[in-house]
Amino acid sequence: MHPLPHDPSRDDDDGFHEECGVFGVWNATDAAALTALGLHALQHRGQEAAGVVTLSEPGKFHAHRGLGLVGDIFGDAKVMAGLKGRCAVGHNRYATTGETALRNVQPLFADFEFGGLAVAHNGNLTNAVTLKRALVRRGCIFQATSDSEVFIHLIAISLYASVVDRLIDALKQVQGAYSLVGLHDGAMIGARDPMGVRPLVLGRIGGEGGAYVLASETCALDIVSADFVRDIEPGEIVVIDNNGLRSIKPFGRTQNRFCIFEYIYFARPDSVVEGTPVYTTRKRIGEELARESHVEADVVVPVPDSGVPAAMGYATEARIPFELGIIRNHYVGRTFIEPTDQIRHLGVKLKHSANRPMIEGKRVILVDDSIVRGTTSKKIVEMVRQAGAKEVHMRISSPPTTHSCFYGIDTPERSKLLAANHDVEEMARIIGADSLAFISLPGLYRALGRDGRDAANPGYCDACFTGDYAIPLTDLVDHPERMPALLAANGQ
Amino acid sequence: MHPLPHDPSRDDDDGFHEECGVFGVWNATDAAALTALGLHALQHRGQEAAGVVTLSEPGKFHAHRGLGLVGDIFGDAKVMAGLKGRCAVGHNRYATTGETALRNVQPLFADFEFGGLAVAHNGNLTNAVTLKRALVRRGCIFQATSDSEVFIHLIAISLYASVVDRLIDALKQVQGAYSLVGLHDGAMIGARDPMGVRPLVLGRIGGEGGAYVLASETCALDIVSADFVRDIEPGEIVVIDNNGLRSIKPFGRTQNRFCIFEYIYFARPDSVVEGTPVYTTRKRIGEELARESHVEADVVVPVPDSGVPAAMGYATEARIPFELGIIRNHYVGRTFIEPTDQIRHLGVKLKHSANRPMIEGKRVILVDDSIVRGTTSKKIVEMVRQAGAKEVHMRISSPPTTHSCFYGIDTPERSKLLAANHDVEEMARIIGADSLAFISLPGLYRALGRDGRDAANPGYCDACFTGDYAIPLTDLVDHPERMPALLAANGQ
Amino acid sequence: MHPLPHDPSRDDDDGFHEECGVFGVWNATDAAALTALGLHALQHRGQEAAGVVTLSEPGKFHAHRGLGLVGDIFGDAKVMAGLKGRCAVGHNRYATTGETALRNVQPLFADFEFGGLAVAHNGNLTNAVTLKRALVRRGCIFQATSDSEVFIHLIAISLYASVVDRLIDALKQVQGAYSLVGLHDGAMIGARDPMGVRPLVLGRIGGEGGAYVLASETCALDIVSADFVRDIEPGEIVVIDNNGLRSIKPFGRTQNRFCIFEYIYFARPDSVVEGTPVYTTRKRIGEELARESHVEADVVVPVPDSGVPAAMGYATEARIPFELGIIRNHYVGRTFIEPTDQIRHLGVKLKHSANRPMIEGKRVILVDDSIVRGTTSKKIVEMVRQAGAKEVHMRISSPPTTHSCFYGIDTPERSKLLAANHDVEEMARIIGADSLAFISLPGLYRALGRDGRDAANPGYCDACFTGDYAIPLTDLVDHPERMPALLAANGQ
Amino acid sequence: MHPLPHDPSRDDDDGFHEECGVFGVWNATDAAALTALGLHALQHRGQEAAGVVTLSEPGKFHAHRGLGLVGDIFGDAKVMAGLKGRCAVGHNRYATTGETALRNVQPLFADFEFGGLAVAHNGNLTNAVTLKRALVRRGCIFQATSDSEVFIHLIAISLYASVVDRLIDALKQVQGAYSLVGLHDGAMIGARDPMGVRPLVLGRIGGEGGAYVLASETCALDIVSADFVRDIEPGEIVVIDNNGLRSIKPFGRTQNRFCIFEYIYFARPDSVVEGTPVYTTRKRIGEELARESHVEADVVVPVPDSGVPAAMGYATEARIPFELGIIRNHYVGRTFIEPTDQIRHLGVKLKHSANRPMIEGKRVILVDDSIVRGTTSKKIVEMVRQAGAKEVHMRISSPPTTHSCFYGIDTPERSKLLAANHDVEEMARIIGADSLAFISLPGLYRALGRDGRDAANPGYCDACFTGDYAIPLTDLVDHPERMPALLAANGQ
Repeated sequence: MHPLPHDPSRDDDDGFHEECGVFGVWNATDAAALTALGLHALQHRGQEAAGVVTLSEPGKFHAHRGLGLVGDIFGDAKVMAGLKGRCAVGHNRYATTGETALRNVQPLFADFEFGGLAVAHNGNLTNAVTLKRALVRRGCIFQATSDSEVFIHLIAISLYASVVDRLIDALKQVQGAYSLVGLHDGAMIGARDPMGVRPLVLGRIGGEGGAYVLASETCALDIVSADFVRDIEPGEIVVIDNNGLRSIKPFGRTQNRFCIFEYIYFARPDSVVEGTPVYTTRKRIGEELARESHVEADVVVPVPDSGVPAAMGYATEARIPFELGIIRNHYVGRTFIEPTDQIRHLGVKLKHSANRPMIEGKRVILVDDSIVRGTTSKKIVEMVRQAGAKEVHMRISSPPTTHSCFYGIDTPERSKLLAANHDVEEMARIIGADSLAFISLPGLYRALGRDGRDAANPGYCDACFTGDYAIPLTDLVDHPERMPALLAANGQ
Repeated sequence: MHPLPHDPSRDDDDGFHEECGVFGVWNATDAAALTALGLHALQHRGQEAAGVVTLSEPGKFHAHRGLGLVGDIFGDAKVMAGLKGRCAVGHNRYATTGETALRNVQPLFADFEFGGLAVAHNGNLTNAVTLKRALVRRGCIFQATSDSEVFIHLIAISLYASVVDRLIDALKQVQGAYSLVGLHDGAMIGARDPMGVRPLVLGRIGGEGGAYVLASETCALDIVSADFVRDIEPGEIVVIDNNGLRSIKPFGRTQNRFCIFEYIYFARPDSVVEGTPVYTTRKRIGEELARESHVEADVVVPVPDSGVPAAMGYATEARIPFELGIIRNHYVGRTFIEPTDQIRHLGVKLKHSANRPMIEGKRVILVDDSIVRGTTSKKIVEMVRQAGAKEVHMRISSPPTTHSCFYGIDTPERSKLLAANHDVEEMARIIGADSLAFISLPGLYRALGRDGRDAANPGYCDACFTGDYAIPLTDLVDHPERMPALLAANGQ
Repeated sequence: MHPLPHDPSRDDDDGFHEECGVFGVWNATDAAALTALGLHALQHRGQEAAGVVTLSEPGKFHAHRGLGLVGDIFGDAKVMAGLKGRCAVGHNRYATTGETALRNVQPLFADFEFGGLAVAHNGNLTNAVTLKRALVRRGCIFQATSDSEVFIHLIAISLYASVVDRLIDALKQVQGAYSLVGLHDGAMIGARDPMGVRPLVLGRIGGEGGAYVLASETCALDIVSADFVRDIEPGEIVVIDNNGLRSIKPFGRTQNRFCIFEYIYFARPDSVVEGTPVYTTRKRIGEELARESHVEADVVVPVPDSGVPAAMGYATEARIPFELGIIRNHYVGRTFIEPTDQIRHLGVKLKHSANRPMIEGKRVILVDDSIVRGTTSKKIVEMVRQAGAKEVHMRISSPPTTHSCFYGIDTPERSKLLAANHDVEEMARIIGADSLAFISLPGLYRALGRDGRDAANPGYCDACFTGDYAIPLTDLVDHPERMPALLAANGQ
Repeated sequence: MHPLPHDPSRDDDDGFHEECGVFGVWNATDAAALTALGLHALQHRGQEAAGVVTLSEPGKFHAHRGLGLVGDIFGDAKVMAGLKGRCAVGHNRYATTGETALRNVQPLFADFEFGGLAVAHNGNLTNAVTLKRALVRRGCIFQATSDSEVFIHLIAISLYASVVDRLIDALKQVQGAYSLVGLHDGAMIGARDPMGVRPLVLGRIGGEGGAYVLASETCALDIVSADFVRDIEPGEIVVIDNNGLRSIKPFGRTQNRFCIFEYIYFARPDSVVEGTPVYTTRKRIGEELARESHVEADVVVPVPDSGVPAAMGYATEARIPFELGIIRNHYVGRTFIEPTDQIRHLGVKLKHSANRPMIEGKRVILVDDSIVRGTTSKKIVEMVRQAGAKEVHMRISSPPTTHSCFYGIDTPERSKLLAANHDVEEMARIIGADSLAFISLPGLYRALGRDGRDAANPGYCDACFTGDYAIPLTDLVDHPERMPALLAANGQ
């Protein structure tokens, strides 16, 4: 229920594609401060809003949330002082602005018959529309547009007695890709979807008897000096209480399908995923790329910041100098000058600028992580040319992005994906590069230490490159009227 | 469900004692503007927050709400332009501040299986705690602390098919004093509790074929130039749609118990209630008061603004000059200087100041509408003495307030009501007056045109003066732990 | 100098016509709190902005200012705690909104060679443009648009040694109507223009050895429980320091010309001016009005709030019932709904509403304080007629306003003054009244206890009714291009 | 004059050490948008506030300024639409927060006898206190605390007739390091201090007949696609009007003393200063450093972002792998969690985090640009050790910072400079490094293409490394009471 939505009649399925970070801590002094630090380390997963809920004694929850960066939201001593307790869960997210956002900011909290429950979740449900319709028919009232509310209602109406059984009941009904952290009176709960598409790791502070930590990435363990214990497994539910940790695996055996794009772009370079450092993987992708599609050139230049490790790997493998030929301006605020038509032709470079002396008169290999719509690549190539490059060769550390993601990464509909509508040669012409190459799918798997891609069980979700959607897209099939553009574009 | 309450564990029964104004209009050009004007005329019923929901076409609702005065919230052309449609409901309320408030601001809105419904309500439910517990047990999730949400959930889970039948189903389960205005796709609905404690009137703009208006008081009809049609009757539900108005009376016959305090203080003087002008009634109360308890004096001085008509009646009847011996400062903002101890003894007069030349050397009769805690009366008597009054006689246009209100008027718990703990002589001593008199209960009823009070069927709710609570106080009995102070004090 | 004005090229003479209140206290505990209280009592003189400067030890000034009501600006304990010291001056003003306003909010403060000086001033200079031009030519840099800055610069460049001599030097160069309160290291200074157009009174707290207070009106003395000592005399400068009060009269003898409009409308009814209570004067004006222009009627109704005492006087003298036939809505916020064309014809009554039962079928005498443009009177007459009045007779407690004020009261240019362009009969027709009458000029002077108006030395400034401008209008004559509309209209 | 400073008695010499960027454009479409873009490219020189003043026709100036990032302040289409005209000057600055800041935000604007003048300036005056005292004694009133206001007053009181002559008159009286851009009715003016300590470059858009641009660095020319023309010379004043550019050199010949620290840290890496690319210089410094003080190690790790080019140079010269062993979190907001004592020992890493897999078990060479207080270096060394480094060797791309800067770079007083109080060995122990080395002064000059440092005429200002203050420190000598800490520490 929402007391005064800006437009209460708007569709309830805009919640698609949330990129988020989650964090939880059980049994630690300064739980709220640790959670805020953890969210700060996960800031790259969502910069629009953040929230923390703590538990100080049975039934006593405390909460704060806001729009903006973690440091700004939780930088107030009075706010932190109000977040009492040794247990906390937090969330930060990439979201739309405005009043609506605040209602949607997680962790969500609800009072149930059995007490309060706070839930923070990262990911996307693929049968949310279907479930919402059934729940409304049953008398449930939705307040926000976020998929997460579906969890809350399923838990509320479950006939099971314990919180954990109710949560399992809820998880069995949802489809999709998600990691979640929950907090109630007696326990902190972590859960990953059956295929483990979204990440969740376990850490400890202070060893035996110390605190437990759950986080989206290991970099959030590092900032609070927690020791990495292990990844939560696909389909695993961990229940952490004063007796320690209990693991439940309520789902049948399924394939592992960790999101391969976390390695390429999304995870922070200093995180370690499934035992593999992200930074090292990115360098190896660069090396593979150099082996697959090298071209004569004078200098390898990364598109900062995400292209840097791959460019370093490329340069090393290709034995060409690596130079910071593009400088990134980190001070781009929320909004920026919309250039008038008169100055738009200047090819304005708000976020990147060419380091002219490193580029002028040179044959340049640019290394970037992906091409989505192609508009940014086009501008960057143009900027490098204006700075005097003799040749511009673009190398991409991922295969062509030909399909939309329905599992939690914000991608446009298929009709807007450059690679869904053009072959590589056309793409090169469109972005204005002298040559363009993507890493091959086998090359990407090789960089991850595999022999190649096993089509029967690839071990990763690579749907955005292959269209191999392992989790059913129920809403897309059953409620096509809700997503006509996606449908048409994806041809499903 | 609330995404991040400041303290989610706080009791869910703080919603007590909301004073509010409601307004609705069906089938008028500029429905939102008319509603904002109506709420402005009802501003005395609640100054903290206001909201409007409009309906532009089936399923298309638009809403805006804010904290503050109606004129500030709806003074923005862009806001008004967004509130499209020929049908609207609005609400303003007296409420606590802070983030919580915004979640609680009405009209509440929810999407049901049958479509959207907006509800604005004035009053208080006396079995809200009991109902909430049952609803939570059933799987309902509450977001706000307002009683109004109970209505919404009861409607959502009702098994009846039509909105009106679901609403009747809900109303049959709640106890308390309320007036409500609802808006859904096909109709505007008005309802008053079975005893008609809280007011609701019907008006029309433009005669046959024109618009229908529902409002808490007639002054809100006047501001939009609507003609007064009639009071909605106790226990009546009116359904207004494109076929006209339909009246439903789903409750058995009960006593009329309109709140007598609306006449004394709460309603605006230019409103007409049940055919009787409030202003005239107040003057008559002043006349009765003069007949009952007159004392020799030089001047009759009202405590502005509410004491003015009674003081005029008193002065006329007693043939003593009426003078504005106390000036009210209307510019008291939200907050004000908390005086330090050093200056507190100055007897600071932020809201009222003595008009010394009218008071100095005179025997003064002060006329006020009520004494609740007694602190204000004490300060006013002291201020009038400091201004040089020879004698100060206090006359009150209501009987002693000995009991708390549970039906929608904000009163403190019984232990803090001066008249619940002291006789009149003690009260005079406490407030420092040379004499003190209240109008008698029979005198009050005489001023309303009755012969006196018929204990079997008084025709008004006067529980605050008599303890005669006609509507059951279920929560008070069943959940005493939620309101210990009230319980103890009221001895129930 | 202004670091980034919205439009630095705009004219520097918009500062016209400031209505303001000033307050100062010397040698009192809680000087800042007393000043805030004093400003609160003077809130009717300016509601847009307020400021306080305190002095805690030689050279240590503290300041706070803001836009809005005094209670809101100074309601913060932290703000008050920062305003240390036993001496303070304050100011509130009626001003335009926006960024500019904050720069203009008084008291102004400047560091001089001899130390800091804070100045708060009420009134208007009539040679400000001329002086500003000369000062800029000399190298002075102006930051704000307020006339008050002229004082500051004249003091800064004065060749006299002492602050008081510099101030006298400055006052001798300015022309206009003003009261000011200044605070520097060694003393508090009060000053009134040579003709005493604007008010300033002296009070004491705690008798000998206690505090001195300066204020625009006595109501500000009352709120801090200060004893009234006397009016500051026209042309008098008082210097208050630790040795007591010293009076200086640097100007030659001039006529007294206290603003007669303060009695009619501007001062608070509980203030006493020149020994005469404002409230009593207003009642006497009403009595005179009844004697001069009575008409048969059933009821006398004031236009609230300012018309109330005159209406009481009228009703008593005419022996007709006095009734509150118009109710004022005190909750009109900053902004309000701009009605669309469709509803404008409803004759919207945001500030006033008719108390229909007191008006319907009656012959009504309305009493108001003045008619400026006539638009409000027209609306009120119309509203009273719509409420069913049989006849509407308007009586005004001031003579016709035929001329603009250049001495500190905000009035429109002459072409917009109804009485400057129409005779009384035409005015009656325009506002729609059955009859209209103003108090005569002799009648007004009789109500003030004089025999009539002595044209050679009337004793009051009544320029708005007579065009008798006793203080030269230098800017109007020398810089006509700056005020063409005023010039044309005033025919000077 | 300031209309209500928070504490008007505070010293007027806090304006020390402003780091700023300036930009100006003459005769271009969209002058305001170009200026905002230029300021965005100069954002690294000051992130706290920014302002733009434009000129649309003689006498018509328009201005906007705010606190925050350029993109946020000028991202509003309405703001930009108000900044009309083909000429503009802008400024961004590093400044303190609060109300004061807004008053100080440049460009300053003043109305003079000859018309309006806007001035933006980067740098610091060393005789500001002395000049301010003299100006106040003469009757000038200061509003802000910024040194820039001294320019404005000197211009206002100058007896010369033309703006340019008045500006030269003013510049001859001030001492210090500054670059400024001014705009008045007839011309845009650029000026650099006689020794050219602070930078200023000239560019053109559209060749002959096109626009002129002045900017602190060439990166601001690049973003608006302006061609670099030349550096403004030390002591040069350029006057740009519709007749073209005129160069004036009013000062006698002096040494060039461009700030060497701009090369090391302050300028953006893609800027070119005096014909030398900053990025290349930094790499060369890294190479020199490797030659001077190499140590056996496994990996070279920069402290991002400023240490990156030097680390690349070092790694290349030393033939050791270069790895991003430290990741910078760019999302640190304005404020951040102040850690409680309990978690402070965690060695919280808000801005940097160790990329553990690149560090664990390795001998690490860290490369950073400077050590000021030593606190950051200590934390970084500790963090790298916690991540498992076997050895940590710190290499610094500047000589030890032993002296405070009085010429516009914010440095602490000398007593807080680690290198002013400890030798290198002690410093290594304090920061916890296994070894520590700084580039030598001759090495630094070699990296800049010189043979070494010519003590008689070094060609750069290197006072922070040598104490060789070429511009007199007048205030420091004449007003020691204003800066006791600096004095004591610097031993002067």
